Amino acid sequence: MTSRAPSGSTPFRRSSGGAGCPGRLTRVLSQQQVPGAVAEVLQDFFCATSTALDEISPVVTRAGTALEEFVLGGGKRLRPLFVHAGWQCAVSAADRPATAPAPPVSEPLVVRVGAAIELIQACALIHDDILDRSDTRRGNPTVHRRFEAEHDESAWAGDSAHHGSSVAILVGDLALAWADDLVHGHVPVPDAPVPAVLPPAAGALWSRMRTEVLGGQLLDITNEVSADESVDAAYRVMEYKTAAYTVARPLEIGAALGDSSPELSAALRRIGTGLGLAFQLRDDLLGAVGDPEQTGKPSGDDLTAGKRTVLVALALAGSDPATADTLRGLLGRNLSAAELATARGILTESGALAEVERQIDDHLTAALAEISGLDVSATARDDLAALAHRIAHRQA
Amino acid sequence: MTSRAPSGSTPFRRSSGGAGCPGRLTRVLSQQQVPGAVAEVLQDFFCATSTALDEISPVVTRAGTALEEFVLGGGKRLRPLFVHAGWQCAVSAADRPATAPAPPVSEPLVVRVGAAIELIQACALIHDDILDRSDTRRGNPTVHRRFEAEHDESAWAGDSAHHGSSVAILVGDLALAWADDLVHGHVPVPDAPVPAVLPPAAGALWSRMRTEVLGGQLLDITNEVSADESVDAAYRVMEYKTAAYTVARPLEIGAALGDSSPELSAALRRIGTGLGLAFQLRDDLLGAVGDPEQTGKPSGDDLTAGKRTVLVALALAGSDPATADTLRGLLGRNLSAAELATARGILTESGALAEVERQIDDHLTAALAEISGLDVSATARDDLAALAHRIAHRQA
Repeated sequence: MTSRAPSGSTPFRRSSGGAGCPGRLTRVLSQQQVPGAVAEVLQDFFCATSTALDEISPVVTRAGTALEEFVLGGGKRLRPLFVHAGWQCAVSAADRPATAPAPPVSEPLVVRVGAAIELIQACALIHDDILDRSDTRRGNPTVHRRFEAEHDESAWAGDSAHHGSSVAILVGDLALAWADDLVHGHVPVPDAPVPAVLPPAAGALWSRMRTEVLGGQLLDITNEVSADESVDAAYRVMEYKTAAYTVARPLEIGAALGDSSPELSAALRRIGTGLGLAFQLRDDLLGAVGDPEQTGKPSGDDLTAGKRTVLVALALAGSDPATADTLRGLLGRNLSAAELATARGILTESGALAEVERQIDDHLTAALAEISGLDVSATARDDLAALAHRIAHRQA
Repeated sequence: MTSRAPSGSTPFRRSSGGAGCPGRLTRVLSQQQVPGAVAEVLQDFFCATSTALDEISPVVTRAGTALEEFVLGGGKRLRPLFVHAGWQCAVSAADRPATAPAPPVSEPLVVRVGAAIELIQACALIHDDILDRSDTRRGNPTVHRRFEAEHDESAWAGDSAHHGSSVAILVGDLALAWADDLVHGHVPVPDAPVPAVLPPAAGALWSRMRTEVLGGQLLDITNEVSADESVDAAYRVMEYKTAAYTVARPLEIGAALGDSSPELSAALRRIGTGLGLAFQLRDDLLGAVGDPEQTGKPSGDDLTAGKRTVLVALALAGSDPATADTLRGLLGRNLSAAELATARGILTESGALAEVERQIDDHLTAALAEISGLDVSATARDDLAALAHRIAHRQA
């Protein structure tokens, strides 16, 4: 673990264990340590909630276990990493007046807010999987399929698919409610620091982020059924469903937790929006031409699912009418290897693949330039730049 | 409006307009005024959230409007009334030490927390209606049917029923997220008082209540498919899905907002649990033998829906095997007038109807006795007793 106390702050580690001076600990979690700290907070939280579930019924305990396994079983913890990166920028910022109080919110709350976004993400994925009728997630059955299987195996009455979806709706709801409980410290966790109160600026962003991801998802499913295949529509979904929710808002929330100046918050929002778009554009590419060995998803998953991505919108817009029709006919159904090759050929020949790569590059370049100009600690800049490269160039 | 300042408190009205002394207003909302104050808070909140929705897309604004119409279009505001009643008990309690600080939380927060439970309730109903495949709610199409119809009318692609459910899942999620935003004041409402922070005891109960209603609902759907028709199973669902969520927890939350003593909180919890059970038992009766003119629901709704209520469980347990089989065969499907009469005959002859009436009476009597012994203001006692009579004897 590296020692890198941003000037003017008194952050402290969540788990004691180092030789810190009580009341004035100076260590900060390194970027590499954030995912582990987030998992630890989540584990403690699930343990603390189990009392309420056990009291009701073993049926409810089982649902809680399904949620716990889902949340702890995977995920890159990208959103918590961006919360932490935003906070690190704010507490090390040069425009922090010398007379400014120490950052009002300490690192444990930063980690806790990051962990809470993982619960939002669990709700989003569990409910999305119902909407998309997905069978697997991270190599396991989706939550609704898991409870559909329980229904089948138990030879229960009624429609097992409907039962599976019903349970998954409620499990997602539990995750969404618990995200707020975690942020606000409503479930006392033994040995955890006394929860700090979320500053109003962070609370307002927390609200916006949740509204935006749900709104973006609503827009996405409506665009899909209304067959809006315009590039504009795909961009709009990307902006709210992914860019704001995955990068921009987490960065901004972190900055607000670090009592950031309005100028720094605005810069981080610009950086976050660009990187969020790069993240989703890379996702579009991986979903169409990614290596299943690396992504863990079937080859051409987005094409067979018929997702209206920017990549597909650009390919449709960049093809002659007959070719566009061919592509349309290959979306939203199972494809043979030959059909998949045809679809990918159109993505290439229309120039869409190259265009998306170019856009990713542009977003990354612009973000890196703005990051390098931030007047924050070198560590804060380096960490944010590392995250930028990582999400723009990821293979999975 | 009556003037009834509980001793030791400085509550104040949400909307100024009276001749109050700023900083030391002494008026309290009467019980009759609570639903109106709750509706006003909700209206202001929906107005304040519209900016975020409009920015994303008119599609999302439409979903927000559907939620607003759902929340403002009906409901008896029972839960806010119990929050307010619990708070009124706490702030007027005789066991409040003379040296106790003024109640830390003022009436506007009490109303706001009550209004937020109405948003939880919106999520619970919207999602329950998907689970129960219900077509109407409060005389209008359910939210999933509303968006299914939009899909049909627009001649969109894909399965309109799946689309309707998908939108309703997201609209319910929005309500659940917004409940927390409202409680914590994350969405700034113009002209509203600066949000007070929820005291930890109230936050812990807020968390419990949400977990319990979701857990109770999970247990309910699992009992249904696993055909657990025991009286015990039906009671357990009732305890968590209704009694705690509708009465006991709101009363306790109100008490916590009024800085209640542990003794008073415990008494209110006992009172609330009994009244909550009476509420649901009355619901069982209305759902089986209620007057459709008064309930606004089809005659024998719970029977055709196949709900495993305590009433049905008692009737099955109190009938000979052949009669019980006849009743089982009449549950969960559309019934002719003659079949409905047969089912109701079994409910009567098994003694179940009379037993449920007796239990309601017992719960009400015990609650009223404990209420009359509470050492709180006469107004607080009278208001709570009036609510007790109301929910035990309601016709709708």
